[in-house]
Amino acid sequence: MSEKLRIGIIGAGRIGKLHAENLAYSIPSAQIAVIADVNMTQEMEAWAKSLGIPKVSKNPQDVINAADVDAVMVCSSTATHADFTIAAAKAGKHVFCEKPIDMDVEKVKIALEAVNKAGVKMQVGFNRRFDHNFRRVRELSREGGVGDIHIVKITSRDPAPPPASYVAVSGGIFIDMMIHDFDMARFQAGSEITEVYAAGAVLVDPEIGKAGDIDTALVTLKFANGAIGVIDNSRQAVYGYDQRLEVFGSKGSAQADNDMPSTVKLSNKDGVTGDKPLYFFLERYKGAFIAEIESFVDAIQHSKPVEVTGEDGLADMYAALAAGKSLKEKRPVAVAEVMK
Amino acid sequence: MSEKLRIGIIGAGRIGKLHAENLAYSIPSAQIAVIADVNMTQEMEAWAKSLGIPKVSKNPQDVINAADVDAVMVCSSTATHADFTIAAAKAGKHVFCEKPIDMDVEKVKIALEAVNKAGVKMQVGFNRRFDHNFRRVRELSREGGVGDIHIVKITSRDPAPPPASYVAVSGGIFIDMMIHDFDMARFQAGSEITEVYAAGAVLVDPEIGKAGDIDTALVTLKFANGAIGVIDNSRQAVYGYDQRLEVFGSKGSAQADNDMPSTVKLSNKDGVTGDKPLYFFLERYKGAFIAEIESFVDAIQHSKPVEVTGEDGLADMYAALAAGKSLKEKRPVAVAEVMK
Amino acid sequence: MSEKLRIGIIGAGRIGKLHAENLAYSIPSAQIAVIADVNMTQEMEAWAKSLGIPKVSKNPQDVINAADVDAVMVCSSTATHADFTIAAAKAGKHVFCEKPIDMDVEKVKIALEAVNKAGVKMQVGFNRRFDHNFRRVRELSREGGVGDIHIVKITSRDPAPPPASYVAVSGGIFIDMMIHDFDMARFQAGSEITEVYAAGAVLVDPEIGKAGDIDTALVTLKFANGAIGVIDNSRQAVYGYDQRLEVFGSKGSAQADNDMPSTVKLSNKDGVTGDKPLYFFLERYKGAFIAEIESFVDAIQHSKPVEVTGEDGLADMYAALAAGKSLKEKRPVAVAEVMK
Amino acid sequence: MSEKLRIGIIGAGRIGKLHAENLAYSIPSAQIAVIADVNMTQEMEAWAKSLGIPKVSKNPQDVINAADVDAVMVCSSTATHADFTIAAAKAGKHVFCEKPIDMDVEKVKIALEAVNKAGVKMQVGFNRRFDHNFRRVRELSREGGVGDIHIVKITSRDPAPPPASYVAVSGGIFIDMMIHDFDMARFQAGSEITEVYAAGAVLVDPEIGKAGDIDTALVTLKFANGAIGVIDNSRQAVYGYDQRLEVFGSKGSAQADNDMPSTVKLSNKDGVTGDKPLYFFLERYKGAFIAEIESFVDAIQHSKPVEVTGEDGLADMYAALAAGKSLKEKRPVAVAEVMK
Repeated sequence: MSEKLRIGIIGAGRIGKLHAENLAYSIPSAQIAVIADVNMTQEMEAWAKSLGIPKVSKNPQDVINAADVDAVMVCSSTATHADFTIAAAKAGKHVFCEKPIDMDVEKVKIALEAVNKAGVKMQVGFNRRFDHNFRRVRELSREGGVGDIHIVKITSRDPAPPPASYVAVSGGIFIDMMIHDFDMARFQAGSEITEVYAAGAVLVDPEIGKAGDIDTALVTLKFANGAIGVIDNSRQAVYGYDQRLEVFGSKGSAQADNDMPSTVKLSNKDGVTGDKPLYFFLERYKGAFIAEIESFVDAIQHSKPVEVTGEDGLADMYAALAAGKSLKEKRPVAVAEVMK
Repeated sequence: MSEKLRIGIIGAGRIGKLHAENLAYSIPSAQIAVIADVNMTQEMEAWAKSLGIPKVSKNPQDVINAADVDAVMVCSSTATHADFTIAAAKAGKHVFCEKPIDMDVEKVKIALEAVNKAGVKMQVGFNRRFDHNFRRVRELSREGGVGDIHIVKITSRDPAPPPASYVAVSGGIFIDMMIHDFDMARFQAGSEITEVYAAGAVLVDPEIGKAGDIDTALVTLKFANGAIGVIDNSRQAVYGYDQRLEVFGSKGSAQADNDMPSTVKLSNKDGVTGDKPLYFFLERYKGAFIAEIESFVDAIQHSKPVEVTGEDGLADMYAALAAGKSLKEKRPVAVAEVMK
Repeated sequence: MSEKLRIGIIGAGRIGKLHAENLAYSIPSAQIAVIADVNMTQEMEAWAKSLGIPKVSKNPQDVINAADVDAVMVCSSTATHADFTIAAAKAGKHVFCEKPIDMDVEKVKIALEAVNKAGVKMQVGFNRRFDHNFRRVRELSREGGVGDIHIVKITSRDPAPPPASYVAVSGGIFIDMMIHDFDMARFQAGSEITEVYAAGAVLVDPEIGKAGDIDTALVTLKFANGAIGVIDNSRQAVYGYDQRLEVFGSKGSAQADNDMPSTVKLSNKDGVTGDKPLYFFLERYKGAFIAEIESFVDAIQHSKPVEVTGEDGLADMYAALAAGKSLKEKRPVAVAEVMK
Repeated sequence: MSEKLRIGIIGAGRIGKLHAENLAYSIPSAQIAVIADVNMTQEMEAWAKSLGIPKVSKNPQDVINAADVDAVMVCSSTATHADFTIAAAKAGKHVFCEKPIDMDVEKVKIALEAVNKAGVKMQVGFNRRFDHNFRRVRELSREGGVGDIHIVKITSRDPAPPPASYVAVSGGIFIDMMIHDFDMARFQAGSEITEVYAAGAVLVDPEIGKAGDIDTALVTLKFANGAIGVIDNSRQAVYGYDQRLEVFGSKGSAQADNDMPSTVKLSNKDGVTGDKPLYFFLERYKGAFIAEIESFVDAIQHSKPVEVTGEDGLADMYAALAAGKSLKEKRPVAVAEVMK
């Protein structure tokens, strides 16, 4: 392996670009060898050049087959994640795969098998585990600061709802949105989710209801270690991106509040007013997106386990499927039920 | 009616004494005419005298039958609440009854019927509705500050668990502890609870488990107006009495944080440290205990509706019973199921 | 001495009434034997009766000469403070004297001499020393939490300016308002003020300037122990009563923030808004007014030193006079200069 | 002018490197044409190459004379700032000069004259004006949120003292450290400082005293617009880099608190503890260092005034000199006194 980890990227959409820019500007231990996008445009090429990426392609195979690529980042459309993961693994490349690995659990399993067989590393893009606030909470509980964990509470609300057209193909709120929170819950509890009960409603936008989804959800969790938890999601928090959590236990409670653009407070005759939370996920999780790739690179270069495995991605998917089943059948659902 | 509302108190235990002292020292619009306790001691008599209470008795009937009493406060043991309420109502007295009215729903109904028939006012002792923080949240949502209510979240944790012997006769965590939060949830949502799902565990003290109860509980709520909610309870928050809530809606979110003994923060090499929340419920809800009686007195003197009715007490009881049933049967339970 | 400390009050104006009500309702270890006011009205008499005060009078001598009075609280107009203090001391009564003892330093000295000669206790009404926040800061620094004290910063701003007519006879901002902060600075620094430099301006109300005073002031302090400090005053903080301080030292910094009516925050599209600070000094220092009298009673009953001595009152006065001199002469002024 | 602003950097020490990395990674509208350092090492060359800087030199003239350089950033040792500024201006280059321009006011004046004569733009490196918090405060007051400004308060404390050897050649605390705060005070007040009074002490490290300096300082300010202010500095805040300010006026008060590494709070039996402020100035002002160069580039490319002029640098220097004189002569000093 060369000194710098050589990375190939498949997909130059929003998330692919973000990772590329982070690699180019903020992660000196890696370099981008090639980027491919089936819709590669002249603009994209110019952008890639400005980042110093030496090679661009319209063919993802050019990434997978490249001799000078140590690891492949799969940032293409969801439907292609599993196939590119499998192909990259077979080619002996380490894989960073954006979430979800696939909408179909069977396909996810096949991908994980391919990765395991190839003996390469695989990390899934649950960036929030690398957030400075949530990571600090986890550190505190790992250090024993909260004692045995009793309750995990996660609030996760988007600033504005997606269009109903997006919702219709999104896989639903549990797969599309709350899957991040299932992952966070498992991370914070240090334990697997064994049962869920989902309550949901259409309160934000009736079009979301017509598209067969809900926009407000509250899911009760039971964990293997005996702890209990709850996640609430809303598609619209008018004050911004609301991302908070609490881990409560026998010795105390660790709480992460929102990040704000500034610490400034204005006191006047109307009250004491501070900033709203950062509005957009790219802003809120800016550092987390860099940290997750640093961690991936570090895991490969120093033979450490990755911090978010393919198995994590699968477990999160099971929790989401169980939540969907719970909502539909109006009863608590054991996660084992959807694992067949 | 004399200028000051004339109050008779039945029961001079912790809560009876508290109300008496609040009436004597902080509520000029009322006066205590008589206090009765079946275990009246010399000490109690001296204490009553020091408050300027002109008459003490071992016989609760002396309160109920007193000609110079406009309203009776029932602060005796739970098992006697309903009977004294009925007797007082029949005697034409207004009634303030500590919670719960009774452990038996049928008896509660009989008491409410007696009150309604007598045409007197009845208020139940859910003091938290009068807390400065929770009241401010309700005001903000009533004024439209949060828009339509989507999610209500309540955290309510005691500083230390009661002895298992108490737990055994307490009626269980939902009746003994979470009933306050059911009442708060209904108050904040401005709507009735229609369905609950209860998750619970014994994580604090195995003795509580042996006594047939749980010490950690998380209950999902559905409200008649479409909102959803969650309450979490723990019998032990080592950092103090943890009493917070959030009301989230279409226009924003109102959150009440804990009250602290001081605003002081110490910054040193170990971090920035502030006070723990107020530890004890009498301290935390000091103002609320006064405000609930002021409100009761005001309702009588100015012919206003009371702010927490007997029907509220009954509805809270139903929610608690439904939660118990949900925990036992491991399924969501419609509150209507327990209303027969 | 009877079990309860027997107190006589001279003056039934705002502050006299406040102390009387606190004694009647919140301080069981004392009782009011008599209250006198040269302008005693029927209303005052009725109010006194409602508090259970057995005797009222138009003649302050009836308080000073009363055989059943252990301690006299001087709450009359400023011009009479010193004389009543002297008379009470000569009559062998302990004295609680509202601030300032007198506008004239010589008269203050004479009063202190009389008190010392009589061997009675004297406490001056600097209630803020008993405030829960400021007291907590002092505790933290006494316990060594901030190490050696380097900097003391006090912000003290009124919600609204007094009328210019009041300002004209008030003795000026340093005597009338900042004297509280000089006392607080000495208390927090645990050291005497040796030098002051005063900057001031008329920025709130030109009428205050016409009355010969300033409405905005910033005074630099040097303390005998080497620490430095600053106090800022404004006659108008439109957001409420702004009472904060910081004690910074070799091991850390303790900061007291304002008290708010509630902990509630509303997040909406305009920001995150919380309550304004408590607006009025009676509300903000409610607990402090009770605690100072409890402390006075306790000092007498248990032969402890009082917590704010007459000498403190004199030292505060010197600091205020030095500040006035500094403002006038536009130079730093050693406090010793005004002590003659 | 080419599309990207072409920048030459003189000095590849800590601050030169910081600016170079920010230009390379975070400011797409500019590019570095050349970097010179009289002590250019092989390591520096490798570092420059890794940033894609096409040319390195040991001779600052290679920057000043380069035909492909539009603007020169002077990041060399303080003693050379003025000369390089003059040379760059004469060569028709825009200049970004680190603070201070020079220790000698006369030399500063000569440099500013050269800049003015050449008609180039000059910006001085007072990065804090670009900090997200302080900028937000300024915005709020510019928008009228605080009304007329009455009081400006700045707290600015370093986490740890420099070695006494550094102190001896630093120009003293007012020139070396508080000059940032004088600049901030002028920026926030929107007005010039007309008079200062400095109190100071050696409380942190006696070695600093032996080196002829103080380590704790508190300076009162008067502004041309009638406002008053205060700055406090300490060389050692053991809890981190303490950077706060308040602008108080007729309509309210805007306060900027410290930035913390995370929002997490741990509640346990000892209290509620959060993070310490960010410890190091490079971390705390990370965004400000980028924003100041973006602003400089923008000013040149879009013919706008720079946000921190050479005249600002001179005015800040005058304030610092006046503070030094005030400390020495123990009296308030009009800034005009030191302007000769």
